[in-house]
Amino acid sequence: MSTGDSETKDYYDYSEWYENNVEPTKPAEEVILPCDPTADDRLYHICIAAISLIVMVVLAAMTRRKRLCQGFMNGVPGLLSPVNFLDHTQHKGLAVAVFGVLFCKLCVVVLSQNPLPFTSDLEYREYWKLLSLFYYPALYYPLLACGTLHSQVGFVLGSLLSWTHFGVLVWQKVDCPKTPEIYKYYSLFTSLPQIACLAFLSFQYPLLLFKGLKGTVKTNASEDLDSSYYKDYVKEVLKKKPSKNSTTSTTKPKLSERITDALKSYIYMPEEVFRFPLKLAISAVVSFIAVYQVALLLVTAVVPTLQKVRAGVNEDIAFLLAGFNIVLSQDRAEVVRIVVYYMWCVEVCYLSAMTLSCLVTLVMLMRSMVLHRSNLKGLYRGDIYNVYNRQRSIRPSRPALVCWMGFTSYQAALVCLGMVIQTLVFFICIMFAVFLIIIPILYGQNLILFRILRNMWPFWLMLLLVVVIQHASSKFVFIKKDAGTRDLDNRSGLFLMAYLLFPVNVLVGVLVGVWRVVITGLFNIIHLGRLDISLLNRGVEAFDPGYRCYSHYLKIEVSQSHPVMKAFCGMLLRSAGQEGGAGQKMRDVEEGIQLVQQEKKQNKVSNARRARARWLLLFTLVNNPSLVGSRKHFQCQSSESFLNGTLSRTAKDGDEMDTSQKEASKGGAESTASN
Amino acid sequence: MSTGDSETKDYYDYSEWYENNVEPTKPAEEVILPCDPTADDRLYHICIAAISLIVMVVLAAMTRRKRLCQGFMNGVPGLLSPVNFLDHTQHKGLAVAVFGVLFCKLCVVVLSQNPLPFTSDLEYREYWKLLSLFYYPALYYPLLACGTLHSQVGFVLGSLLSWTHFGVLVWQKVDCPKTPEIYKYYSLFTSLPQIACLAFLSFQYPLLLFKGLKGTVKTNASEDLDSSYYKDYVKEVLKKKPSKNSTTSTTKPKLSERITDALKSYIYMPEEVFRFPLKLAISAVVSFIAVYQVALLLVTAVVPTLQKVRAGVNEDIAFLLAGFNIVLSQDRAEVVRIVVYYMWCVEVCYLSAMTLSCLVTLVMLMRSMVLHRSNLKGLYRGDIYNVYNRQRSIRPSRPALVCWMGFTSYQAALVCLGMVIQTLVFFICIMFAVFLIIIPILYGQNLILFRILRNMWPFWLMLLLVVVIQHASSKFVFIKKDAGTRDLDNRSGLFLMAYLLFPVNVLVGVLVGVWRVVITGLFNIIHLGRLDISLLNRGVEAFDPGYRCYSHYLKIEVSQSHPVMKAFCGMLLRSAGQEGGAGQKMRDVEEGIQLVQQEKKQNKVSNARRARARWLLLFTLVNNPSLVGSRKHFQCQSSESFLNGTLSRTAKDGDEMDTSQKEASKGGAESTASN
Repeated sequence: MSTGDSETKDYYDYSEWYENNVEPTKPAEEVILPCDPTADDRLYHICIAAISLIVMVVLAAMTRRKRLCQGFMNGVPGLLSPVNFLDHTQHKGLAVAVFGVLFCKLCVVVLSQNPLPFTSDLEYREYWKLLSLFYYPALYYPLLACGTLHSQVGFVLGSLLSWTHFGVLVWQKVDCPKTPEIYKYYSLFTSLPQIACLAFLSFQYPLLLFKGLKGTVKTNASEDLDSSYYKDYVKEVLKKKPSKNSTTSTTKPKLSERITDALKSYIYMPEEVFRFPLKLAISAVVSFIAVYQVALLLVTAVVPTLQKVRAGVNEDIAFLLAGFNIVLSQDRAEVVRIVVYYMWCVEVCYLSAMTLSCLVTLVMLMRSMVLHRSNLKGLYRGDIYNVYNRQRSIRPSRPALVCWMGFTSYQAALVCLGMVIQTLVFFICIMFAVFLIIIPILYGQNLILFRILRNMWPFWLMLLLVVVIQHASSKFVFIKKDAGTRDLDNRSGLFLMAYLLFPVNVLVGVLVGVWRVVITGLFNIIHLGRLDISLLNRGVEAFDPGYRCYSHYLKIEVSQSHPVMKAFCGMLLRSAGQEGGAGQKMRDVEEGIQLVQQEKKQNKVSNARRARARWLLLFTLVNNPSLVGSRKHFQCQSSESFLNGTLSRTAKDGDEMDTSQKEASKGGAESTASN
Repeated sequence: MSTGDSETKDYYDYSEWYENNVEPTKPAEEVILPCDPTADDRLYHICIAAISLIVMVVLAAMTRRKRLCQGFMNGVPGLLSPVNFLDHTQHKGLAVAVFGVLFCKLCVVVLSQNPLPFTSDLEYREYWKLLSLFYYPALYYPLLACGTLHSQVGFVLGSLLSWTHFGVLVWQKVDCPKTPEIYKYYSLFTSLPQIACLAFLSFQYPLLLFKGLKGTVKTNASEDLDSSYYKDYVKEVLKKKPSKNSTTSTTKPKLSERITDALKSYIYMPEEVFRFPLKLAISAVVSFIAVYQVALLLVTAVVPTLQKVRAGVNEDIAFLLAGFNIVLSQDRAEVVRIVVYYMWCVEVCYLSAMTLSCLVTLVMLMRSMVLHRSNLKGLYRGDIYNVYNRQRSIRPSRPALVCWMGFTSYQAALVCLGMVIQTLVFFICIMFAVFLIIIPILYGQNLILFRILRNMWPFWLMLLLVVVIQHASSKFVFIKKDAGTRDLDNRSGLFLMAYLLFPVNVLVGVLVGVWRVVITGLFNIIHLGRLDISLLNRGVEAFDPGYRCYSHYLKIEVSQSHPVMKAFCGMLLRSAGQEGGAGQKMRDVEEGIQLVQQEKKQNKVSNARRARARWLLLFTLVNNPSLVGSRKHFQCQSSESFLNGTLSRTAKDGDEMDTSQKEASKGGAESTASN
């Protein structure tokens, strides 16, 4: 916020300066006064907080009544569980929109002077700011809670609440489009995604209500396990795939095909039988909003200032530059023209860098989505080694849970940080390119770089020749193709050449080193915002905190919401439901596995039924080895290796072979990679 | 050299300034005049070049005579093959020392004004410099060639030549210990490794001659294949190892054990039955010399200048600082004291950074040696997947050969570049630490950083509390241990917490991002000088030019000098020698494989013998799958998969299982890792 403040002052200073000098050609600076909207922020927040509280009380009362009607254990998930993050099939829109609203509000809070409108006391501003970090999630909580109840009353209240939020926000922005902060329209632009999310909620709640009245939406909470998605997924998994292994391994793909494949891997195409976990969907949307907010901030904080400085350049600049011994031209008007042109170039460079960084981040986000999907599918299949590059147990643990909770936030923060660093680096690179290459070529001035290169041409020519000679002689002299094998030829010549070119190769090596630094830096800067790949070497991947968070996140996601496990639970619940009476319909989305165990004890099934269940269990485990770890009596390595042995003997297609094979080779891999 | 030049001028300027001001307390600057040694460089180089030429002619004549005596194909390796880089068993000292001399000379050439002493014409200096890059390898060539001939005459000539080189160099340095370049003793210090290498050669050649006279050294050129090393290696490979797999997999190593193991992996312990390839030995020594040279340059280029500036600080500095509105103290003597103290701190920081960077580089070199060994052993065993993380064909190819030729040079160049960058970065970090943390703590001044941290304490406290709460609740509330499995508990609480802490976690995420940037940058800077690991993510490792060079280097090394293959060739040659007459003793180290093929055609072996040979072949291949690729009639995938099938069926211990298993899973791995 200090940036915005100082810059605001800066351009007031400028305008005063112009007025004193009475520049006739330039219009006076527009002075933006702090604006108080008709819908006063303080009053609004007091009202909406009260309304939200009332809504929560009504919802709580309703939940309790419903519970009493339907029995204690059964019913809807508690009011205190706003959103089931581990549910793939629920309607993701509501949760995503609320998280979007919250993230926009967070951006406003971080930059604003007075984040909590209840007080205008600026002395304890920092404390108010900290408090607001907890206030806003609580404020928007009812917007989520109304949706989770799956009841008509909830939808009605949700509609009213979202309309209120949406209406007041739009009213305020229409009232006060301009604010003195950072840039006159900054406040308006920054709230656009928030308005969009609230509009979505205002539209979605009435729609849900309408559907509920027509009876097309199931009000039953076990919607998740009843969904056909899991069954479809299982069907897809069990389907025989045409084995392409033989064709791919024999024919090496062409270069054009490889490029096309690489490009395709950056484009996310939805697949019918795969749905993203809710947390990933939220992360994607929040990251997208983060890109927008950072780009907006980068543009509005710098470009208007640059433009004002450019507009304010007058003939005084010639004296100023002469003070630093820089004489661009004898003509003062010419100097102004040159300075203004250079400043325009800087502005263009900055905007190009910013655009480039936005595009790169968006492409990286899309690529992340592709990789998230392939990683999740791989882990469902049991390809732990391929995803993690080592053996890991897919079970919930303390760090895994912490990383799972923070995943969405970390992703958003890293996208922001990555974009800022990218813009900075790209800006410097583009500036170098423009001022050392493009402008010199266009105008034939300042040919410093070219002069250096020209003076060193014998050196560059020698390096080039040496490299070319090495490549050519390697191809034509030192390698002999004979009966399908390639072998060395003219060894003595090879050794002589390696010796004689040693000093020159050291100089080539310096270039290799510079290239190594550049490529490593660029790669890491571009991929900084991505959690799904480690920026470190393969042996120490886990030291990268971003990747560590992602890999832990995947553990929780896979261990808790494996589609095949869910399909299996759904099937068991249904069969139990058919057998037992109406009173025994104990279905609970979240306690699925425990319920299965309880029901197993309660219902004495016949031997034939038990055999069938066992066969189903074995078949499921064969096709999803990663589920083995979540079985009740699963103990340590001994049984794991036994089961894996069974699996590899039973498995029919290549995919399932991986786990056991990888485990065999694990020892060797770790000894090599443990640097 | 321009650096040295300008600095020389700089301190001349200083000294003049002092003399003009007639400072009584400071002694006049020592002026070092250019020194002409009694052994004039120009005359010396003309003589030594002539002598070297004569030596080469004598050696050539001798070689020809020897060849005529012993037949055309047989005899010593050609004079034009200075050193067999693919030989593990030869005496490495000579080659290593000559490469050391050459590298020291390269350092002198790059920095010197007049690299070639034949002319004092400075106009075409750049061209002379380029020429000298080829002159010096040629000049030192006879030093190598005398050793490769394995003849008494060669050793005598080598002794004489190395004595001359050594004597003249020492004489020159004794004559002119001080030079005006960079630092007065720079020239002396920079030639110390060169003197050491030449001393080693001067000692080694007479020793070889003495051994030759006593008859203890084999003058036969097939020394390599006759060596017992390869047989010992094969024996070691075929030895049954106590299988430790069962114990390591069940008991998880303790933290202390893991730390000890990690530390041990950085210490290189020689092993009896493993010798480094010559090229790696040369790389190690050259890298070590590179560390010395870069450290010397870094110290001598900066520290004397800093010391002179420090000594030259007088009370004028108070006015100078006042000009920049910096008033350190009202007392001018106090200001001088403070400035001198701060400059001393900068000097200490710089030296610490330089020492740290040296230590880091040396540790990294040692770690590289450990990893080189494990990689080579792994590849000999056929663990291609573990080393490269994907399937590769271990066959010579054009890029592989170019990388193999350049490996030593690239390693040296990267060590130099890495050390410079490390020193710079460490210097900045240590400066920050000293001036923002240590000095403020010691003197209670300039507490800027501490003041910022103190003002933000509620923020840090909140972040800490939030993180601690998440960890604690994850451990005690949200994870339930039940019958050996761990599962989630209190899901609704977990979801609520994940929602409410979202905004705070974004701020935590910013810290995670900063940490990610720091750890990635630090890791890459520390490991910049190492070619054996890639600085990029596991999927795109090959884009790192350093690692690419290393992986190609390994291909050539393994495919051409596999110890088991050499043992096999040696065995075949011996059996052929026993059968054939004395005239058929066609042994040639370098053309070993081709000879094997020729001899197979010549000698019609009996069926029993052929069966035995086949059995030996199969057994060798079973234990060294990587040799399969170098067989004559080896064609593409089909036969490879067949052979691998055979191997995995035949193999007895776990190591050999890897290759075939890895190939099966290769498809999946590449699809995941190809981002």
